[in-house]
Amino acid sequence: MQIIEKINNIIKKNNSLVCVGLDSELSKIPVHLQNEQYPQFTFNKAIINATHNLVCAYKPNTAFYEAQGDKGILELKMTCDYLKQNYPEIVIILDAKRADIGNTNNGYATFAFNYLQADAITLHPYLGQKALQPFLDNTEKGSIVLCRTSNPGSEEFQNLETDGKKIFQLVAEKVINEWNKNNNCLLVLGATYPEELKSIRSLSNKIFFLVPGIGAQGGDLEKTLKAGLNIEKSGLIINSSRGIIFADSTQNFANIAKVETEKLRNEINKYR
Amino acid sequence: MQIIEKINNIIKKNNSLVCVGLDSELSKIPVHLQNEQYPQFTFNKAIINATHNLVCAYKPNTAFYEAQGDKGILELKMTCDYLKQNYPEIVIILDAKRADIGNTNNGYATFAFNYLQADAITLHPYLGQKALQPFLDNTEKGSIVLCRTSNPGSEEFQNLETDGKKIFQLVAEKVINEWNKNNNCLLVLGATYPEELKSIRSLSNKIFFLVPGIGAQGGDLEKTLKAGLNIEKSGLIINSSRGIIFADSTQNFANIAKVETEKLRNEINKYR
Repeated sequence: MQIIEKINNIIKKNNSLVCVGLDSELSKIPVHLQNEQYPQFTFNKAIINATHNLVCAYKPNTAFYEAQGDKGILELKMTCDYLKQNYPEIVIILDAKRADIGNTNNGYATFAFNYLQADAITLHPYLGQKALQPFLDNTEKGSIVLCRTSNPGSEEFQNLETDGKKIFQLVAEKVINEWNKNNNCLLVLGATYPEELKSIRSLSNKIFFLVPGIGAQGGDLEKTLKAGLNIEKSGLIINSSRGIIFADSTQNFANIAKVETEKLRNEINKYR
Repeated sequence: MQIIEKINNIIKKNNSLVCVGLDSELSKIPVHLQNEQYPQFTFNKAIINATHNLVCAYKPNTAFYEAQGDKGILELKMTCDYLKQNYPEIVIILDAKRADIGNTNNGYATFAFNYLQADAITLHPYLGQKALQPFLDNTEKGSIVLCRTSNPGSEEFQNLETDGKKIFQLVAEKVINEWNKNNNCLLVLGATYPEELKSIRSLSNKIFFLVPGIGAQGGDLEKTLKAGLNIEKSGLIINSSRGIIFADSTQNFANIAKVETEKLRNEINKYR
C-alpha cells in the first residue's frame, strides 16, 4: 500500500490527525517502570494500548533509544514489532533525521524499513535529492524532509534568502515539484510558524505536513490548523510527545496519556 | 584533553593524516568472516590491528551497523571499546550525521560520547547552532559539521547563493567565527572540490577539515592537499574507506589494508 493511502485510511478510521511522539527517555518514564527488564518497551506498550484508537501515527525518536545503546535499539524494535503485530494500520514514523551519501543511505533505509519496518523516516535535505534516492525509491515508504523546524535558532539557515526565497521555501518547492515523483514525500513544518505553514500549503493542497511544536514548544493549535489544513480538512499529522507521554508519572500514566490524546484529537477536530 | 590536541598528537606520533573509514557493510566483508559470531567487529579488529600505527583516526559510519539492528550497534560498541582499550591515542570519529532539536540532541550526544566513547561526531547544520549546543558544549569532543559534501548532487542546496555567498561558505564562516568557541569544531569538505577547500582554508589556518572523497569517489589527492593543508602542513584528516578496507577479500585482507594505508600515508606525506 502507498504511504499516503495508509495515512488517509487511519486518519479516517480513528478520526484523528494526532501523532504520539514516543520520545521515551529512560530517566523520564515513571519510576515504577525503571527496573523492568525492558523499561522503554514496557512504557511504550502501555501508551500504545491506551491510545491506539485515538491516533493516526506513532513517532519514536531514535535519539532516546540510541542513548541506551544496543539495548535501546532492541527496545525500539520491540516497540515497532508490537505495533506491526497488533495495530498494523497505524503509521510508524521513525524520527531519525538521517541523511548521508547515497551508498550509505542504503544502510539507514535498511535500518528503518527492513529491521524496524517503519512506514516513514524523517530526513535532512542538506545533501540533496540524489543522495536521498535510497529512501525516495521506496515507493511504499514515506520520506519526510525537514523544511522549517520548530526549535529556537532554526532560522539561522532555514530563513536565509536566495533569489528572493527562503531556504525552507526552496526545500518545500523542490520536494513538492521534484522529489515527490513517487508520491511518498512529506515535509516537517513546525507549529511555531503558522504563517510559514500557510505559505507552503499554498504551494500544494496534497502534500502532508508532519507538524511538531504543539505543547511543550509553544505552538498555537488553532493558528496551526487554520494555516495548514488542506481543502479536505486534512493534510496534517500533528505531533505531541512530552505533553502526552509524560503528562503523568504515576501508575496511572497510560490513562492520563489517553485523556490527553483524546483532548488533543477533539481540540483538533473542532477546526476540521 | 582537548580534541584538537589529541588530533595533533596522533598525527605527530604516526606521522599520518590518514583516517580509515570503518564502513564495514556486512555483505562486503570477506566471506570467511561472515559466519563469525561478531563478523563486523572481527573484521574491524583485524583492520585496526594491521593499520593502527599508520593512521590518525578511525571513522565508523553508523549506517552500516544500524543496518544490522541492535546486533550491529553492539558490534560498533565492541569496535570502539577495542580501540579505547588498545589504542586510546587514536581519534574515533563517529560518522553519524546527526542533528535534531536541542533536547533530543542530548540523546545522540549520550550515544556518541558516553555509550561509544567516540572522540568526535559528524553533524548536519540545517537546524542551526542553538540546536547543536549539546554537542558543542562537550569541550573535549569534536563537532564535525557538514559543509561541502563529496556526493553527486550535493550542490543542490550547498551551492545556493545568498548575499553573494554560497551556503557551504556561510556554514564554514559561521562554524569558524561563531560556533567554535570551545575550539572543538571541524568541517567536512569533500576532496572532490579542491577549489572550495582552498577558499575555506583561506578563512582559517587553524580549523581541521575532515576530507572524504579520496579513492572510490574520485577526489584528486595532490590537488586536495595543495588546496587544504595549513601552513604547518597539517589541518586535514583524509578519509579512505572502501579503498582500504575492501581492497582485498581473501584471508589476506588485513595485510592488504595495511599496504594500502601505508601507500596513502606516504603519498600524502610527499606533499607535506
